[in-house]
Amino acid sequence: MSIPSYQNYVEQLVKIQDIRSSIALLQWDMEIYAPSKGASKRAQQIATLSATAHEWSTSEYLGNLLIELNEKVDQLTEDQRINVQKSWESYQKETKLPTAFVKELSRAQSDAFQAWIKAREANDFSVFKDSLRQIVHLLRKKTKLLGYQQHPYDALLNEYEQGATVDFLDRLFAKVKLALKQLIIVLNKEGEATDNAFLKKSFSKSKQWDFGLYLLKQMGFDFEAGRQDLSEHPFTTSFSANDVRVTTRIEKNNLLEMIGGCVHEGGHALYEMGLNPAQYGLPLGQAVSLGMHESQSRLWENHVGLSRAFWQANYSTLQASFPEQLGQVSLEQFYKAINQIAPNYLRTIADEVHYHLHVFIRYEIEKGLIEGTIEVDTLEQIWNEKYRQFLGLEVDSAKVGILQDVHWAEGLFGYFPTYSLGSFYAAQFYKQASLEIPDLETKIASGNLKPLLRWLRENIHQHGQRFSSEDLCRKVTGEGLNVDYFMDYLKEKYAQVYAFNSTLSNKY
Amino acid sequence: MSIPSYQNYVEQLVKIQDIRSSIALLQWDMEIYAPSKGASKRAQQIATLSATAHEWSTSEYLGNLLIELNEKVDQLTEDQRINVQKSWESYQKETKLPTAFVKELSRAQSDAFQAWIKAREANDFSVFKDSLRQIVHLLRKKTKLLGYQQHPYDALLNEYEQGATVDFLDRLFAKVKLALKQLIIVLNKEGEATDNAFLKKSFSKSKQWDFGLYLLKQMGFDFEAGRQDLSEHPFTTSFSANDVRVTTRIEKNNLLEMIGGCVHEGGHALYEMGLNPAQYGLPLGQAVSLGMHESQSRLWENHVGLSRAFWQANYSTLQASFPEQLGQVSLEQFYKAINQIAPNYLRTIADEVHYHLHVFIRYEIEKGLIEGTIEVDTLEQIWNEKYRQFLGLEVDSAKVGILQDVHWAEGLFGYFPTYSLGSFYAAQFYKQASLEIPDLETKIASGNLKPLLRWLRENIHQHGQRFSSEDLCRKVTGEGLNVDYFMDYLKEKYAQVYAFNSTLSNKY
Repeated sequence: MSIPSYQNYVEQLVKIQDIRSSIALLQWDMEIYAPSKGASKRAQQIATLSATAHEWSTSEYLGNLLIELNEKVDQLTEDQRINVQKSWESYQKETKLPTAFVKELSRAQSDAFQAWIKAREANDFSVFKDSLRQIVHLLRKKTKLLGYQQHPYDALLNEYEQGATVDFLDRLFAKVKLALKQLIIVLNKEGEATDNAFLKKSFSKSKQWDFGLYLLKQMGFDFEAGRQDLSEHPFTTSFSANDVRVTTRIEKNNLLEMIGGCVHEGGHALYEMGLNPAQYGLPLGQAVSLGMHESQSRLWENHVGLSRAFWQANYSTLQASFPEQLGQVSLEQFYKAINQIAPNYLRTIADEVHYHLHVFIRYEIEKGLIEGTIEVDTLEQIWNEKYRQFLGLEVDSAKVGILQDVHWAEGLFGYFPTYSLGSFYAAQFYKQASLEIPDLETKIASGNLKPLLRWLRENIHQHGQRFSSEDLCRKVTGEGLNVDYFMDYLKEKYAQVYAFNSTLSNKY
Repeated sequence: MSIPSYQNYVEQLVKIQDIRSSIALLQWDMEIYAPSKGASKRAQQIATLSATAHEWSTSEYLGNLLIELNEKVDQLTEDQRINVQKSWESYQKETKLPTAFVKELSRAQSDAFQAWIKAREANDFSVFKDSLRQIVHLLRKKTKLLGYQQHPYDALLNEYEQGATVDFLDRLFAKVKLALKQLIIVLNKEGEATDNAFLKKSFSKSKQWDFGLYLLKQMGFDFEAGRQDLSEHPFTTSFSANDVRVTTRIEKNNLLEMIGGCVHEGGHALYEMGLNPAQYGLPLGQAVSLGMHESQSRLWENHVGLSRAFWQANYSTLQASFPEQLGQVSLEQFYKAINQIAPNYLRTIADEVHYHLHVFIRYEIEKGLIEGTIEVDTLEQIWNEKYRQFLGLEVDSAKVGILQDVHWAEGLFGYFPTYSLGSFYAAQFYKQASLEIPDLETKIASGNLKPLLRWLRENIHQHGQRFSSEDLCRKVTGEGLNVDYFMDYLKEKYAQVYAFNSTLSNKY
């Protein structure tokens, strides 16, 4: 039996979650179905609900309940204690943001999203500038409201990845950047590339759609507890553990984009579906962090979806869907083709090596915008310059340049770094899973992904926010985040794909 | 310049509308896209938002604002005065319902909707009984909370059609029932039927879908301010005048169901799109009543969509979509075929003559359930008996019998009568439109529906709740609701369709 104030606390958090889930639906619909003229009222509706959720999350009533529960901590079960403690931390943080500010930011985000859509249509960054300037202005204000110890950007980072700091990321990213650049140089110099032009043949959209659904089913995505739709930018959202939505983008001439997107978003969805539904709205029923979330999508996308074993199980089905395009392509050719690396303009379709260079560019720009060393006016030049510098590319179109991501339009600064953190965690987790699950590769090669999902459910999903990212990593793998697993994985894999005997390890 | 308290009042009503629009989206999604396992949490989310909307609508804060505005009524503009007065009426009504009751009812409705789905799947009314019993129980309670002068059912009727009473409807419906039965007898005895079996040929669903969109465009449906989706039961919902959603059901072997549905829901949608967006959330920005709403859908569905003129404009396009099925069918044959009448089990596909008999059955049952002379346990027998009595049909399947409508699952008692009222209003309005718009029929026959839409916008849509149904009818047509227009319309039309010289008028 719970003590009464714990029940009241749960009731309050469930109500707040009901509002947040409704906001998630309003956004889901806005991104994929809503007619254009309805956008402004929709933005207002989201703003009203956001303000309400914020009001309730920062109410005196909730605050008093939490204080009371903190005093009665010895009457609480372990689970209850964790929920209350996490909620208390959030409460203290959220009460720093006035409701009017939250509403203003929500409104600005919705407006910016519409401006971003228009700017993309016009392929013109200037259409988006005013909205972005307003977002940056409000986020700078937000860092002041939230407070920070060393760098204002830390305050935003912590929204998505608690404990992450500029200081930590600067060092981590510098290390990886160097290693990646060396790997790329070596592969370019000594590697044996495989032709992958066939991946850009014409693939029927409806057959791609069907194959995407097949892959999600393979992974264990429960279609009675979720669905897939089409959208401009693939994403996953969740209204409860029993209603998880993924979206995908299908390009006729890019088979890999659909496959990668489906498996990636599927990985996110499995995390959400694996959360404890009895803890709906409570910290124990919520994902640890974005980095941890991304570790799940990346693990599936890269370690499973780009592995030879996975395609041993699924390639014949893919071939049967596209006999004309793939009938003459062997499994080995296909496996190598989907793992070819090359610099390109778009983050979302970047290979897993170059991917992080895209992230590091955004990280540096966001940091600069927030600390005030970069301004929106000159942002497009800075973007293009960094693409030249990091990836050797000349950007000549805003749509595949600075307008490619939705994140800034949605006010999501501090979000991009979690993509890289997720990849690094994924490598470490996958290594551990392959040590603990007997014959994991053989199982994957036979189409049996259940043991892996079970392992993830047990080791990660079910815990919700029971542990911090760092602690969870330590609990699961025996050590904190160690980027060597990621680099070892890349090295080993690309030595195979690019036909090395692998003395590569000495070169970085 | 508004006085400050009016601004505060507007702000409050807009916030409430934001919540209500969000609820409408949660429901829209639940009916057409949400995965089954998410239903229970979705029900809870809707309940939380409903309770919130109710709390805000009945808050002391809003009450005090309204009292203050009532005192300052001479400082208000005419429009402001109307809004405040209508809001004050609603406030007094809503404050009669405790928030806990509203939440309980919302929850029961969502549960009942799921039970109804399951009962339909099992074709078994007993699966739905418990939920329906709970709905009836709560609605009986609701009539007591709301209060009524003569009959408890009046309290529910007034939710959808202010001013309607059992006393009024009993007399009105008895008159129409008699007239319809006589018309049916005469048509059966003396009429010349036309073969309409070709309407049940196989019509490709995707081509039907395309033709439905074509019809909506013809009517003036703005696809930048709305969209169409598929659903089990067609409906229209609105999140603002600039985001109006219709759904349709497509049966391969029933072309008329899709056409009728599209034009019907399109008529509802045009009303919503024609409301004043500057009055979002305020009485002047909302439809008068369900009866008035239905007058718009019926006017389009029957007076336009089933008219010879309409098909003069559109039949060749339909033929071009289905050359195999319709290539040999003349316009005149088609026109007569779509207007054939025959009793059948389903209200939604009933012809415009028999339709009202379906409504009258439901009206009598609802009245009985609410006053306690009918109980849920014996409901299926009563339903079947009434179908025997009113329509001469033996119902032998719950799915096409008592489980056919979603309304009771959604707690919508008092709603059905508005369908008939809408038809009666529609005939009266259409008659007036044809007097005021020069060559209306010729215009429709040339595919020009704009003058009709403009007339409806000017005379009905733009006013929102400026006038009551009765007053609006009087303002537009010079007299109150007069069912003779409806019967004259039927008589004149069916005399043509069934090849009479028409001395029919003397027979009822």
